[in-house]
Amino acid sequence: MSWAEWFATQRAAREAAGLQRILRPRAPGDDLIDLASNDYLGLSGDPGVRRAAAEAALVWGAGAGASRLVTGTTTLHAELERELAEFTGREAALVFSTGYHANLSAVTALADRDAVIVSDAHVHASLIDAARLSRAAVRVVPHNDVAAVRAALAAAGGRRALVLTESVFSVLGDAAPLAELAGVCAEHDALLVVDEAHGLGVAGDRGRGLLHGLGLSGHPHVVMTATLSKSLGAMGGVVLGSAALIDHLVNRARPFIFDTGLAPAPTAGALAALRTLRARPDLPARIHERGAALAEQLHVPRSAGAVLSVPMPSPHVAVAAQAEALAAGVRVGCFRPPSVPDGISRLRVTTHAGLDEERWARAVDVLARVAAQSSSSASATKIPAGPRT
Amino acid sequence: MSWAEWFATQRAAREAAGLQRILRPRAPGDDLIDLASNDYLGLSGDPGVRRAAAEAALVWGAGAGASRLVTGTTTLHAELERELAEFTGREAALVFSTGYHANLSAVTALADRDAVIVSDAHVHASLIDAARLSRAAVRVVPHNDVAAVRAALAAAGGRRALVLTESVFSVLGDAAPLAELAGVCAEHDALLVVDEAHGLGVAGDRGRGLLHGLGLSGHPHVVMTATLSKSLGAMGGVVLGSAALIDHLVNRARPFIFDTGLAPAPTAGALAALRTLRARPDLPARIHERGAALAEQLHVPRSAGAVLSVPMPSPHVAVAAQAEALAAGVRVGCFRPPSVPDGISRLRVTTHAGLDEERWARAVDVLARVAAQSSSSASATKIPAGPRT
Repeated sequence: MSWAEWFATQRAAREAAGLQRILRPRAPGDDLIDLASNDYLGLSGDPGVRRAAAEAALVWGAGAGASRLVTGTTTLHAELERELAEFTGREAALVFSTGYHANLSAVTALADRDAVIVSDAHVHASLIDAARLSRAAVRVVPHNDVAAVRAALAAAGGRRALVLTESVFSVLGDAAPLAELAGVCAEHDALLVVDEAHGLGVAGDRGRGLLHGLGLSGHPHVVMTATLSKSLGAMGGVVLGSAALIDHLVNRARPFIFDTGLAPAPTAGALAALRTLRARPDLPARIHERGAALAEQLHVPRSAGAVLSVPMPSPHVAVAAQAEALAAGVRVGCFRPPSVPDGISRLRVTTHAGLDEERWARAVDVLARVAAQSSSSASATKIPAGPRT
Repeated sequence: MSWAEWFATQRAAREAAGLQRILRPRAPGDDLIDLASNDYLGLSGDPGVRRAAAEAALVWGAGAGASRLVTGTTTLHAELERELAEFTGREAALVFSTGYHANLSAVTALADRDAVIVSDAHVHASLIDAARLSRAAVRVVPHNDVAAVRAALAAAGGRRALVLTESVFSVLGDAAPLAELAGVCAEHDALLVVDEAHGLGVAGDRGRGLLHGLGLSGHPHVVMTATLSKSLGAMGGVVLGSAALIDHLVNRARPFIFDTGLAPAPTAGALAALRTLRARPDLPARIHERGAALAEQLHVPRSAGAVLSVPMPSPHVAVAAQAEALAAGVRVGCFRPPSVPDGISRLRVTTHAGLDEERWARAVDVLARVAAQSSSSASATKIPAGPRT
């Protein structure tokens, strides 16, 4: 088959399955209510955050100019790293240009052919890719199964071992048993790598993350990763842990060494957002209030994070429901394969703390109507089992 | 060995080899002459580029808010993609948050277990990682060896095949035989993936890249990747090719699908830089004039790109020479293992088109003095063979 034929065949298969995606550019200042983005706290558009990002572009220019080890580390990066470490209670931090780079870097710099990786079945694509790239022996264990992790570590025969999980899982909105996992890792001198992409700014005291909330931020066997593009409204990723870990990453993580540094504007934006978050503990609290009320209204499980999932009977119905919400002025997301762990498509609703009460109430009305229609349309078709959380 | 012991052992080994690296944050507005960054044309700090980046942060906020397929595609992204495609003579373009993501995406979305990847021995870390991540059978062929590529494709037995190369190689500054490689790929219906990280803005007519310069921009078997963080002074990466290719990447490239979109400020910065480049054909021309003159003065081979390499007798001497240039007000880079294909450490000098004549002349004086001292210090020690280009 020629490449041209291969592209056409692949596209036809996606279209038949209801899985073809296209990009839809949005214009500035549309009046849609955003329940789709990961800007959970509304900080991306906060006036102070915008100004800080703009000011950094004027002072420093549009880019970092080179990799972090050449000239791409500015005093802005150092300041952001210091404040992120302090906020989450860790010794040191290293900022990356994306959350994907943070996970690729942490895992590939720590694990190699001689190591074992034990990975929760529901971790993010970036951790799956990181494990594959590391060339370590990878054992995928059932979701949130501490006994399976213990057994896999016992079977590792003393090799260096990493355990990969998230603090709050995006699709099902459930939390990992982090205290138990950290205990098991300490027993086996394994490192627990926890992606707090959905925990930072949302979970724990004042949004310091679930690890901090559980008293695990100083745990010597715990490495934290996170993104600066969700609750902090900017772009980039971060790894947090001991100074020895960070020194190791600076020297050995290929996706850090061979990548241009995070641009000044998102660096400054994330820093301003972090400072705003420290001053506004009401923001993470509001995510959970709104999430709990909406989960009750839609008869779906609560989320430990800022994303509420509403199961749909098929990808086609999910896309139709999303379009209907959009027509009513509300932008929601849509989880479809391959972005779900169980094949079930869902509406993806951010319980956005940045919206004022009036817009939030309007959004809830639209969602209740759309969800009711989708479930009645589903009664004529196959209804899948809901998530088991 | 415990993790703490492992970190300590690894660091001690780096220190003994002269390979320990630390981050050195730079402050805004230092008066050093920059021959280290990849801001080849000086566009990162161009007043119009700075203003465009700042304006985008004010209008759009600090981040894209979500992945490109959710709400992370703005009209800015679409505009940048249209103009990049037009500038390089390709049908379509897709912007990524880093050049690393662009390469990981292009390769992993095109190659899988059933495919064969033929990779030049000198390609960038991101292409090496991409090939590994794809799970394809990987054949590494000697640098710029067209016959070896032909033989590897002939041995692929009709499987889908990719050939990976760069247009201009960073360390040695040499160019790939792209016309011959494209011809071989067409014979075997393989796709040639060409990283123009060091070619865009530098090589070809008005900096349209080496592929365009060779009349290969419309070639159906050629895929181009590039970064927006070097000559365009911002951040991010891009893949350019047919509309069918771009549609495929949107739907299948995990590092695209599962990553937050490029932030508005660097997106707008890259767009403004591209427009400035179109208006200023003197900028790429100046890179080559300065590079040719400096190569002659330092008795090193010319570069096809914007980076001149000056071989050093050891990593220790390279670092000392770099420090001496810095003390004299000139910031240069330093290639050390593992960033070199042949184990030879080098000074890395950007023939920066954005510097005024007076600063450039000062930099050349400093470089000539530092290079002479390093080679005389080397006469007492082992002198490595220079690069074979």
